[in-house]
Amino acid sequence: MGDALERRTSDVLDANADDVAEQEAAGLSAAMVDRLRLTRSRVFAMAESLRQLADLPDPVGDVVRGATLAGGIEMRQVRVPLGVVAMVYEGRPNVTADAAGICLKSGNAVLLRGSSSARRSNAAIVDVLREAVASTGLPADAIVHVSGGREVVGELMQARGLVDVLVPRGGADLIQRVVRGSSVPVLETGVGNCHVYVDADADLEIAERIVVNAKIHRPSVCNAAESLLVHEQVAAEFLPRITKALAAEGVTVHGDDAVQAYGIDVVPASEDDFSTEYLSLDISAAVVDSLDSAIDHIGRYGTGHTEAIVTRSLDAARRFTARVDAAAVVVNASTRFTDGGEFGFGAEIGISTQKLHARGPMGLQEMTTTKYVLTGDGQIRS
Amino acid sequence: MGDALERRTSDVLDANADDVAEQEAAGLSAAMVDRLRLTRSRVFAMAESLRQLADLPDPVGDVVRGATLAGGIEMRQVRVPLGVVAMVYEGRPNVTADAAGICLKSGNAVLLRGSSSARRSNAAIVDVLREAVASTGLPADAIVHVSGGREVVGELMQARGLVDVLVPRGGADLIQRVVRGSSVPVLETGVGNCHVYVDADADLEIAERIVVNAKIHRPSVCNAAESLLVHEQVAAEFLPRITKALAAEGVTVHGDDAVQAYGIDVVPASEDDFSTEYLSLDISAAVVDSLDSAIDHIGRYGTGHTEAIVTRSLDAARRFTARVDAAAVVVNASTRFTDGGEFGFGAEIGISTQKLHARGPMGLQEMTTTKYVLTGDGQIRS
Repeated sequence: MGDALERRTSDVLDANADDVAEQEAAGLSAAMVDRLRLTRSRVFAMAESLRQLADLPDPVGDVVRGATLAGGIEMRQVRVPLGVVAMVYEGRPNVTADAAGICLKSGNAVLLRGSSSARRSNAAIVDVLREAVASTGLPADAIVHVSGGREVVGELMQARGLVDVLVPRGGADLIQRVVRGSSVPVLETGVGNCHVYVDADADLEIAERIVVNAKIHRPSVCNAAESLLVHEQVAAEFLPRITKALAAEGVTVHGDDAVQAYGIDVVPASEDDFSTEYLSLDISAAVVDSLDSAIDHIGRYGTGHTEAIVTRSLDAARRFTARVDAAAVVVNASTRFTDGGEFGFGAEIGISTQKLHARGPMGLQEMTTTKYVLTGDGQIRS
Repeated sequence: MGDALERRTSDVLDANADDVAEQEAAGLSAAMVDRLRLTRSRVFAMAESLRQLADLPDPVGDVVRGATLAGGIEMRQVRVPLGVVAMVYEGRPNVTADAAGICLKSGNAVLLRGSSSARRSNAAIVDVLREAVASTGLPADAIVHVSGGREVVGELMQARGLVDVLVPRGGADLIQRVVRGSSVPVLETGVGNCHVYVDADADLEIAERIVVNAKIHRPSVCNAAESLLVHEQVAAEFLPRITKALAAEGVTVHGDDAVQAYGIDVVPASEDDFSTEYLSLDISAAVVDSLDSAIDHIGRYGTGHTEAIVTRSLDAARRFTARVDAAAVVVNASTRFTDGGEFGFGAEIGISTQKLHARGPMGLQEMTTTKYVLTGDGQIRS
């Protein structure tokens, strides 16, 4: 599939150029057009990502647990594909190749429903991938591009018994619509209102480095930091320092009353700011009077994605990681590490913020279920 | 909790006597009244089941995976509780104690909504369990009995953000209502249209023993056999033999045309029979011309619970276990082994026939999710 994408790059770029032209004519913002635009190197990166997936171990057939039951029955719990996965997404066209690769490698068939603004690009990518799949003797229909209007998403949501799992990936509106309306089981991917809490015992140099990286490394993604919490004991020293460092990177700090009291250059934060996933060069900031206040704040405003603490205290690290309820809890590192690639899972289908089935980055293993296989020689229950 | 149940058995029996009297006055069938009725020994069995749970290892804190990431971040995927579990069930009052025990042991709070016919029994059991929980210093509200009318189930289904997972356990109507209407994530428990396929290479003595056991050992449960498939090569020998053995146990065989052609005493089967979970002393029967026909039949009529093959052929066993898509696939043993107790999980919350999160018997581990804990010393992404 990677080789085919490289061989047929021009087909993909031609289709993409038509999508880009249409969106530019429709007045889409330059930033959004950039997300849509493919280049030769972006297509090569998609191909490389597929090759990395191919090199990962196949999860299907893994024995998760096993035992010999009392009467001598051999029991194995074995990983098997989910079946038919449908993915509804808004992101860049590279999601098409990643999702197809992950689903095929984990033994699933996949229905791909991308953004209508990228429909020609996605159709071209799927066409290339289907040809590659068919050339190996596998059915091309293992990868299907779903076209049609917005009502198609509603049809996928009601296709219980035909679709085994539905994965929405995109903005909060799309995800909420799918999660609340789908009769097909859903793997919810992540809205990330991620916090960095700078503890009383923090190394402030490390804290500055982590806050800046978590905010600016890639502001538009779900594991970027959106909110900064600072313990009051270090606020007088840290807030001016971090505000200056963030300003130098073009970040606007939205501070609560306590933050404003330090006489630094911040925009006043409303209650709404603390619930907002900015996905931009903005960050909310609050002062907290204790570790437990930070944990409470995160419990109230967090979305269960990634929450970080900066501290030298082992007690604080243990309490924070035990009590904060999120897919990933990070001590002394950037929130940006919650990522399938960083975790060694290869490309990811998304980052789950739900608790059932998968939580955190979803790679090959998360696209499987299990089956119990019992082998005996005539055992009955008495 | 087990000790408290034994100490306060009379309170539970008194409440149960009132439930039983009400249902007898309302004309409930003797079989249903028997399901509802508690005795001293049934309460003691509930207590014993709780003690067995207490002896099982605590799943919370188990490290599922771990790695040191490239930059030196230590990553652990750790089991944590799901949070608030709501259970809606119709079964015997012992489900109340089992579910409370499983949820508490796995660190969850539980809302228990049993059948209204058992409401006094369930309330009394929960009262005893709450007192025991509180006596250890844990909050009594870890276990809550939910009373009120039928609309309460609808409220639980919409309590997204308050309830982390909803587990319906009971008849197909209840389960379908919850699965299709709930915005809270659901763990679907099982309708079981379970098959036993007697292969051309079967040991017919073993086949007879397994079919009879799978049908009559406990006909009212989801892992009982409901349908018999016989390879045409052994049909002439096996069908008369198994029909006689089943008739001796009071079982009615509903046979398709091919089965009827063997001149044995069967009731004609309609298409509906093959889709029916009888939960009674009835079994449907069909003749198939190959292993693959049996697999196709199971794919069409099965509910993904437990499917069994009787064969001496390793090839047939491998093909059947690979191609049949179900929570449990059994070779040469009774379908009745798909059970949390038999699997060594202790009491079970139900048997999942869905593919997400848990498939098969759900014990302590299935009532948990995971959290990634990352510990570094200042790592950022570059």
